[in-house]
Amino acid sequence: MQKISDIKEIGLKDLKVDDFIERQVREIRAKVGKGVAINALSGGVDSSVVTMLGHKALGDRLRTVFIENGIMRQGEPEHVVAIFAELGVRVELVDAKEEFFSALKGLTDPEEKREAITQAFYKEVFGRIVRESKAKYLLQGTNYTDVEETVAGIKRQHNILEQLGIDTRKEFGYRVIEPIIQLRKTGVRRVGKALGLPKELYDRPPFPGPALAARVIGEVTPERVETVRRATAILDEELKGTKAFQWLAILHEDRVTGLRANKRDFGQQIEVRCWDSTDAVTGTPTELPFKTLTRIADRISNEVPGVVSVTYNVTKKPPSTIEAV
Amino acid sequence: MQKISDIKEIGLKDLKVDDFIERQVREIRAKVGKGVAINALSGGVDSSVVTMLGHKALGDRLRTVFIENGIMRQGEPEHVVAIFAELGVRVELVDAKEEFFSALKGLTDPEEKREAITQAFYKEVFGRIVRESKAKYLLQGTNYTDVEETVAGIKRQHNILEQLGIDTRKEFGYRVIEPIIQLRKTGVRRVGKALGLPKELYDRPPFPGPALAARVIGEVTPERVETVRRATAILDEELKGTKAFQWLAILHEDRVTGLRANKRDFGQQIEVRCWDSTDAVTGTPTELPFKTLTRIADRISNEVPGVVSVTYNVTKKPPSTIEAV
Repeated sequence: MQKISDIKEIGLKDLKVDDFIERQVREIRAKVGKGVAINALSGGVDSSVVTMLGHKALGDRLRTVFIENGIMRQGEPEHVVAIFAELGVRVELVDAKEEFFSALKGLTDPEEKREAITQAFYKEVFGRIVRESKAKYLLQGTNYTDVEETVAGIKRQHNILEQLGIDTRKEFGYRVIEPIIQLRKTGVRRVGKALGLPKELYDRPPFPGPALAARVIGEVTPERVETVRRATAILDEELKGTKAFQWLAILHEDRVTGLRANKRDFGQQIEVRCWDSTDAVTGTPTELPFKTLTRIADRISNEVPGVVSVTYNVTKKPPSTIEAV
Repeated sequence: MQKISDIKEIGLKDLKVDDFIERQVREIRAKVGKGVAINALSGGVDSSVVTMLGHKALGDRLRTVFIENGIMRQGEPEHVVAIFAELGVRVELVDAKEEFFSALKGLTDPEEKREAITQAFYKEVFGRIVRESKAKYLLQGTNYTDVEETVAGIKRQHNILEQLGIDTRKEFGYRVIEPIIQLRKTGVRRVGKALGLPKELYDRPPFPGPALAARVIGEVTPERVETVRRATAILDEELKGTKAFQWLAILHEDRVTGLRANKRDFGQQIEVRCWDSTDAVTGTPTELPFKTLTRIADRISNEVPGVVSVTYNVTKKPPSTIEAV
């Protein structure tokens, strides 16, 4: 790994996409030689671009795994694997739902939930896969914003090998390759487009690392994730035509009174947020047509079992934030 | 008390307001004779009308108490007492905040909270006042809808004397007078207008019995009531010009992430509901201008300490209900 202070940003006006791709492919080949590399694909733009660069450089000597953690959106794991299959890239789908849900069991504090997901990913699932594979090279989608946030102390400095449970002193020879570390998001998107990724991948709206677990207030169980997953699918259908920066459905823990077949039904509430923003630093709620809002509420309260009430968030960021937990 | 099956409704087309008032005043006088009567005024239309009828019949021999339970809207107890003072009716303001909050302590279940308020009112506070007073006559604002709901089993049949902790067999001579028991709400409002009540009292929007305690999800503490009270006051200011059937602010128990002075602030959320309805049996969310919604959110999140997020409910009744708890 490079020293963090040695990393130089490549700004948009200096980025020559084709040259960049050619140089990264060359460097990956030079580093891996005749060895085998591994990477984890989440379907986000960073890991998608790294997968394409690695595949271009190494072909079948890059092993790409997609870890199904049980907290993704509806059909997402299969859909991402299918997109890469079309591009000629084989992606291994690893079912790790049980590991993640058992790590999340009983946790309600947002920070503890986040940490449990991180630990389950690195130490348990991906860590085990890396250690059991013959790969000594690990491709990572670190970008320049991650570097900056590490320097600023916003993110922990990630020693990825330690996070994977690999003792770098004992197990000499592991090497981390970070092909997009000099680029910011917009640069990464341009490279993704040039690499032939479909628009839905290179132009993907932001989605939080802890996925739908970040959309559940309180304990994250398979049932509660399924509830917010269905609400999210309805929201995606209803809002995909809008120009909003991001939208999300949040399952509350508070129960509210509802009525089903003339009987009191103490049910669940879904909160919808939809943001106008350019940078996620500040944001305002999108002025959706009132008919759209009530249609979303009708659909969610009719189609998602247990939900009796739907709200729309009308607060600016700040003092609100984009996500709720 | 009359047998419930003997009570006959007076419909709107049969209601001659002046005759009705004259007859009730005469009957109250006949029943109470030279005795003393007592009643509790909440500021709702029913108890306001009963107070006026009783005062007209008995003058100072009617003792009217307003029980400040700590869960009323901003300035409400003083305001109601002042309105009646203008009408020449002396109302005794009884501070019972401590009794109510200690009855509510630790309770989170909506039914238990409701029951605690009812018990604190009847058994503890008003019961004690009635038993300690010399009054043997109790004026009550029971209306015809209450009678119907008792017959239908929706409401418990209220034996008011038992609820007040008065053993009717041992303490013979107590008598309950229910002057508006033959009227529904619209009739009561007409009588109130004819009695000289100001419009804000005879035309008062519905407000739940458990007052702001019904607007707090989770435990009802003085601090949490104060939060929802301030949000309600802002809502009243912003929406008083609209023609909506009813509006309300609800304090959630769930915490959501917010940002204050660039620091993470795990804060509270207020849910706003505003209903179009004619009968409260069904309802649709009012299409408020988006600017009104965001202004309400700005004000609540800036002016109410601890609140970082405001939502607007967009669900129909059913499957939602007017109130949340």
